[in-house]
Amino acid sequence: MSGKIKIGIVGATGYTGAELVRLLLDHPLAEIRCLTTTSAAGQDLAGIYPFLRPRFSQTLVEYKLDEVKNLDMVFICLPHGKSMEIAPELVNAGVKVIDLGADFRFRDLAAYEQAYQKHAAPEMNAQAVYGLPEYHRARLKKARLVANPGCYVTAATLALKPIVDGLAYLPGSIIIDAKSGVSGAGRALRQDTHFLEVYTNFSAYKIGAHRHQPEIEQNIGDSVVFVPQLLPVNRGILATIYVKLREKLSTEDALAVLRQKYRDEPFVRVVDEPPTLKDALGSNYCLISAKIVGDGGQLVLLSVLDNLVKGASGQAVQNMNIMFDLPETMGLERPALNP
Amino acid sequence: MSGKIKIGIVGATGYTGAELVRLLLDHPLAEIRCLTTTSAAGQDLAGIYPFLRPRFSQTLVEYKLDEVKNLDMVFICLPHGKSMEIAPELVNAGVKVIDLGADFRFRDLAAYEQAYQKHAAPEMNAQAVYGLPEYHRARLKKARLVANPGCYVTAATLALKPIVDGLAYLPGSIIIDAKSGVSGAGRALRQDTHFLEVYTNFSAYKIGAHRHQPEIEQNIGDSVVFVPQLLPVNRGILATIYVKLREKLSTEDALAVLRQKYRDEPFVRVVDEPPTLKDALGSNYCLISAKIVGDGGQLVLLSVLDNLVKGASGQAVQNMNIMFDLPETMGLERPALNP
Amino acid sequence: MSGKIKIGIVGATGYTGAELVRLLLDHPLAEIRCLTTTSAAGQDLAGIYPFLRPRFSQTLVEYKLDEVKNLDMVFICLPHGKSMEIAPELVNAGVKVIDLGADFRFRDLAAYEQAYQKHAAPEMNAQAVYGLPEYHRARLKKARLVANPGCYVTAATLALKPIVDGLAYLPGSIIIDAKSGVSGAGRALRQDTHFLEVYTNFSAYKIGAHRHQPEIEQNIGDSVVFVPQLLPVNRGILATIYVKLREKLSTEDALAVLRQKYRDEPFVRVVDEPPTLKDALGSNYCLISAKIVGDGGQLVLLSVLDNLVKGASGQAVQNMNIMFDLPETMGLERPALNP
Amino acid sequence: MSGKIKIGIVGATGYTGAELVRLLLDHPLAEIRCLTTTSAAGQDLAGIYPFLRPRFSQTLVEYKLDEVKNLDMVFICLPHGKSMEIAPELVNAGVKVIDLGADFRFRDLAAYEQAYQKHAAPEMNAQAVYGLPEYHRARLKKARLVANPGCYVTAATLALKPIVDGLAYLPGSIIIDAKSGVSGAGRALRQDTHFLEVYTNFSAYKIGAHRHQPEIEQNIGDSVVFVPQLLPVNRGILATIYVKLREKLSTEDALAVLRQKYRDEPFVRVVDEPPTLKDALGSNYCLISAKIVGDGGQLVLLSVLDNLVKGASGQAVQNMNIMFDLPETMGLERPALNP
Repeated sequence: MSGKIKIGIVGATGYTGAELVRLLLDHPLAEIRCLTTTSAAGQDLAGIYPFLRPRFSQTLVEYKLDEVKNLDMVFICLPHGKSMEIAPELVNAGVKVIDLGADFRFRDLAAYEQAYQKHAAPEMNAQAVYGLPEYHRARLKKARLVANPGCYVTAATLALKPIVDGLAYLPGSIIIDAKSGVSGAGRALRQDTHFLEVYTNFSAYKIGAHRHQPEIEQNIGDSVVFVPQLLPVNRGILATIYVKLREKLSTEDALAVLRQKYRDEPFVRVVDEPPTLKDALGSNYCLISAKIVGDGGQLVLLSVLDNLVKGASGQAVQNMNIMFDLPETMGLERPALNP
Repeated sequence: MSGKIKIGIVGATGYTGAELVRLLLDHPLAEIRCLTTTSAAGQDLAGIYPFLRPRFSQTLVEYKLDEVKNLDMVFICLPHGKSMEIAPELVNAGVKVIDLGADFRFRDLAAYEQAYQKHAAPEMNAQAVYGLPEYHRARLKKARLVANPGCYVTAATLALKPIVDGLAYLPGSIIIDAKSGVSGAGRALRQDTHFLEVYTNFSAYKIGAHRHQPEIEQNIGDSVVFVPQLLPVNRGILATIYVKLREKLSTEDALAVLRQKYRDEPFVRVVDEPPTLKDALGSNYCLISAKIVGDGGQLVLLSVLDNLVKGASGQAVQNMNIMFDLPETMGLERPALNP
Repeated sequence: MSGKIKIGIVGATGYTGAELVRLLLDHPLAEIRCLTTTSAAGQDLAGIYPFLRPRFSQTLVEYKLDEVKNLDMVFICLPHGKSMEIAPELVNAGVKVIDLGADFRFRDLAAYEQAYQKHAAPEMNAQAVYGLPEYHRARLKKARLVANPGCYVTAATLALKPIVDGLAYLPGSIIIDAKSGVSGAGRALRQDTHFLEVYTNFSAYKIGAHRHQPEIEQNIGDSVVFVPQLLPVNRGILATIYVKLREKLSTEDALAVLRQKYRDEPFVRVVDEPPTLKDALGSNYCLISAKIVGDGGQLVLLSVLDNLVKGASGQAVQNMNIMFDLPETMGLERPALNP
Repeated sequence: MSGKIKIGIVGATGYTGAELVRLLLDHPLAEIRCLTTTSAAGQDLAGIYPFLRPRFSQTLVEYKLDEVKNLDMVFICLPHGKSMEIAPELVNAGVKVIDLGADFRFRDLAAYEQAYQKHAAPEMNAQAVYGLPEYHRARLKKARLVANPGCYVTAATLALKPIVDGLAYLPGSIIIDAKSGVSGAGRALRQDTHFLEVYTNFSAYKIGAHRHQPEIEQNIGDSVVFVPQLLPVNRGILATIYVKLREKLSTEDALAVLRQKYRDEPFVRVVDEPPTLKDALGSNYCLISAKIVGDGGQLVLLSVLDNLVKGASGQAVQNMNIMFDLPETMGLERPALNP
C-alpha cells in the first residue's frame, strides 16, 4: 500500500457514517473520497452534522458503482437487507468492503433468515469474515468482505467468550442484562427517541427478542437470555452478564482467565474495579471486569464500550487497519472524553 | 381520631424528610408540627429546599423527646444505628413511629447485625411491624412501630413474592439487576454523586454486597444475586428480575399470578407492556410486568417505582394512613409527573 | 355551580392536554367528560401516556359539537388557526371556553395576523379576555372565552409589568434572554427534539423572530429583544431579563416594587435569592427575583415557572377556578417535585 | 527544538490537568514527565480518572522545583494565589510556563487585586503575555510566561473584540448572558454541583459579580453586564451577547466584520447559523455567529466553545505550540464528539 487509502462510505448520513468520518479525520492514511446517501444527495454532510464543519466539508452523492469501484475501501452503513444488494458488486470490482450492518454476520444462513429476512447473496456470505479482531485477526488480514459485529454483540462476546472457553459453567444459564445509550437506536425520527420519552427515563425493550441475541449465541455457542435496555444518555453500552459456574471460584480466578486472553490486545482492558460507561466514551476501548458473588458459583461480568466506536465505526477502522496491514491501532488510540 | 394528625419528622433535612413534607402538604389530615435535625437547627427547611418555599416554612430544631412526645406520629429519617436509639422512648411515650431506616426491618437480629451493626434495642425490634402494606396490612393497623422497607427491597419484593409463592421455580436462581436514580444515594457530598461523575454515565456498585440483599432474601425466603446500578437520573428504580422456572409457562400465566395477587391493591399495577421509569415518577405506584422468554422456562420480571415515594416516604404515608384507620390512599393518589 | 364541572379537552393528545388531565385529577370539582383528537380517535389517552394508567382511562373521540355542547367548560389545546374555527360555536352554545393557543391573545388583530395568520373570528376575538389572573382577574370572572397566555409570555410579563409600570426605565432597552425545557416544543416528531440533538446541548432559535415577542410587547407596552433558547431538560422556563433604568436604584428598591404588586397573589412569589428552574418544576408557582448590577442603572430580573403549569395548563385551571367562582387555588397548590 | 517537549503539569488532579493529559496524549511531540499534586501524592492519575487507564499511567508527586526545573514546559493548574508563588522560580530556571489560573491575566494589578487578592509577583506579572493567540500571537512566540485566559473570557472576547474594534456601538450597552456546563465549577465537592442540584435544573449565579467580568472588560476596553448561568451538562459555554449599535446594520454586515478578522484563524469559525453547544464539544474550536434584530440597531452575538478545551487546556496547548514554534494546530484538530 503506497499513499493513502481511498475510502467511500455508503449510507453516510446515519450515526455510524458520521462517526466513521470523525474517526477517519484522525487517521493519517485515510482519505475520504465518496459519501453516498439515498435521501440527502447534494447536501454537505457538514450541514447535517454541524460538529464536522470546522474540519470537514463534502457533498453527498447517490450511490453508483462507477463512483466507488476504483476506491480501495468501502464502508457500508445501510440497514440490513440493503448491504447484500451491493456488497457483491463491490467485492467483485476489487474493493475491500466492511459492512457495518447485519447481512453478513451469520455463518448459518438459517439463523440470519430467522432473525432478519431472506438472504440475497449466500455465496458472498460464505466469503465474509466476522470482524471481531480479537478472535479472527488472521482471517481478517486476507478478507475481501468483513461483517462488522453488532454493538451489544461486541460487548457481550468479548466478556463471555474467554469464560465460556475457559471455565466450567452451566450451559443455558447465561443472562445478559444490557444497557445502551440512544445512539444505538439511530437518527430516524421515532416517538421512543423523542427527547421527552428518554430524558429522566429508563426502559427495557425487545425482551428476549432482539436480533443481537442469535448473533451472540453464534459467537459463544450457547443460548442466552438477552434483555436490552435504553439509557438516557447519548453513547455507551454497559452489559451486566450473569453466568452460573459448575465450580466455586474466586474473583481473581475469573479475572485471570480474562487477563490471560486479552493480555496483548490493544483495545480490550481487563480491570479490577467495575468499569463505568464513561470510561469508554468516545474511545475504541472495551473494558471488562468480573466478580464472583454468593457462595462462589455465580459470576458477574461487566463489559463497557462505546457503541459507536468499538461497537461500530471504531471497530470497522480497526478492521480496515488489519486488512491493509497497517498498525492495528492507527488513528484509534485517543482516550475517552471525560468529564 | 378527631382532628388532624400531629406529625414530627426526625432527621428532616435529607431527601426522605423533604419528600415527606412534600407529600404531607397534600394530605388533608396531616399537620407537620416538628422537624428535627442534627446539623441545621435554627434554619428554615425551605431555605435548604427552596422548592418548598411557595408552600411551606418551618424552623428546624434539635431533637428532644419533650418536643415530640405529645405528637401523634413521628417519622424517623435517620441513618441506621440512630433510629434504634430513639424509637423506644418515642413508642413508650405513646407516639406512633415509622422508621424509614433499616434498624427494625429484620426479624432475625443476626441478619441485621451481619449487614449493619450490633442492635441496641432487640425488644423493640420484636414489636416492630414490617411496613409493606400489601403483605402486612392487618398487623400494621395495630402497629406502634413500623419498619418502612428499603427502596430496592420494595421494588423487588412486590414483583417476586407472588411468583415465589405461586409458581414452581428453581431456588437459588433469582437474579435482580436493579437500577436506581441518584436520590437513593442521599444528599451528602460524595465524589460519586458529583454531577460530572454521574452525567452521561452508568455504573454498578456493591455487586453482591448491598445491604438490601438480605432484606429481600428475608422477604421472599430465598437467596438472590443482587446487582445495584446507578442511573444518571434523579428518581426511580427499575428492577429487571430473572427467575428460572421448573415448568414451561406463558407470559400470560405469569401475569395472571401477579394480577391475582394485586387485583385489589391501590398502589400496585400489573401491566402488559414493560413499564418505564417515568411511569411512576413522583407517584406512589409500583408497576410490575412479566415476560417469559426462551423455551418457556425463563421468567423476566420488571418492577418500577419512585424510590422516594413508594420506595420510602410515600409508602410511609401509606403506612400512617393504615395505622390511623384512614383511607389507605389519602393524599397519595396523584399521578406521576410527565413529561 | 352545584355538583362537579363537566369538562372537555379538545386536542387532548398533546402535552398541554395530558397536563390538564394530570392537574384536573387532583381538582375536587373537576370531572373530565370528553377528550377529543384528530389523530387517535378510539385510543385510550392512558395508552399514549402510560403515566396516567394507574389513575385514569378514557377513550379519545373525534370532535363534534354535539359531544361537547352540554359541558360546562372546554379547554382547547389546538394549534393556532384551529381554535378560532370552533371557539365561536362553543361559546355560542353556552360553554365556557379557555383556549390554550394563540388565536385570541391579541387585542390588536393586525398584530395577530402579522405573527400568525388571517383571523377567522374577529368578533369573538373582541369578547375574549386575556387569561393572566394577576392582571385581569375581574374581567375573567365574567369571561365566556379566555385566551390563555403563552409560556414565555407569562414568565416575562409577570416579571416586567410591575417594573415597566412602576420604575423609570429606558424604553426600548428591554432584553429577554429566555431558556425553556423541551416540552415547550411539543410532542410531534422533529429532528430538533430527537434525544441526541438536545442531550448535552444548548441552542438559541428564532432569534428576534419568535411569536411570543409581540405578545409580550402587547402586555408591557414596549418593544423588546427576545431570544428563546432550548435547555436540555423536560420542563421549565427561566427568563433572564435586562432593563436599563433611568435612575440609580438598589436591589432592594427593585424587589420592593415586585413585592408590592404580588403581595397577595397566590401563585407569584418574589424571592431574594435567584430562583432556579427546579424550584417551580411541576407546580403552578412563578418565582421572580431582581438584582441591580454595575453602577446602579442596570436591572436584572429572573423569572422562573413550569411552562406546562403556570405557563399553560395550570394557569388554565386557575382561570377556570376564577370563571366558576371557586377558590382560585383549588387543585393547584401542590409544591414542586424535587429532587 | 529537537526531540520531544518535556512537560510538567502542576496541580494535575483537577479537570484542566486531566484535560491537558487527554490532549497531550494526542500531541506527537509532547512527553508528560511530571504530574504534581498537593493532595494525592503517590496515587496514579489514572486511578483518579479511570478514563485515562487504557492509555496512561503516571504517579503523582508533590511539587518540588528540582523535579521540574529541567523540563521544557510547565502548565500550572492551581487556584489563583498559588501560581504566583511558583511561576517566578520556574521562569527564572528557564522553564517556559503557561498558567491556566488568573494570577497573571491582568495588566492592571489593581484590577487583579480588586477581583482576587494582593499580588505577590508584580515584576513577573509585567513579563506575562496574555494567551489569546488570535490577538497576541507575535508576543506569545517569545513569551516565557503565558497567562491563559478564563473560559467565559475567551468565549466573550473572541465574539466581542472585532465588533468593538470595527463597529460603531453604544459604550456601556454590552450584556453577556453566558451559560456554562458544570466542569467550569471544578471537581471539588460542593452542594451546588451535587448531581441532584444540577440535573433538570438551570440557574444564574454571581450576577454582575463574577471575576471573569473585569477580565473581559480589560480585553475589550469597555464595561459589561455579565450574568453567568449553570447548564445541566458536562462541558461547553454558549454566550449570548447583546450590543447596541449606533447605526442600523444587516446581519451580513456584522458577520462580515467577524469573518474579516478570523478568516485565517485555525480555531475560530464564523458561521451563518446559530452554533449549538455540541458543535464544539471536546474540540478546540470556537464558533461565532451574529444576528441583527429589531429595527437594525441591536446586535446579538452567539459564541460557543468547550470550556475545558478552547476555554482552558486546548488553548494552553495552542499557546505551547506557538511558544515552541510548532504548527499551531498540532494535536488539536480533532473534531467535536457527536452525538
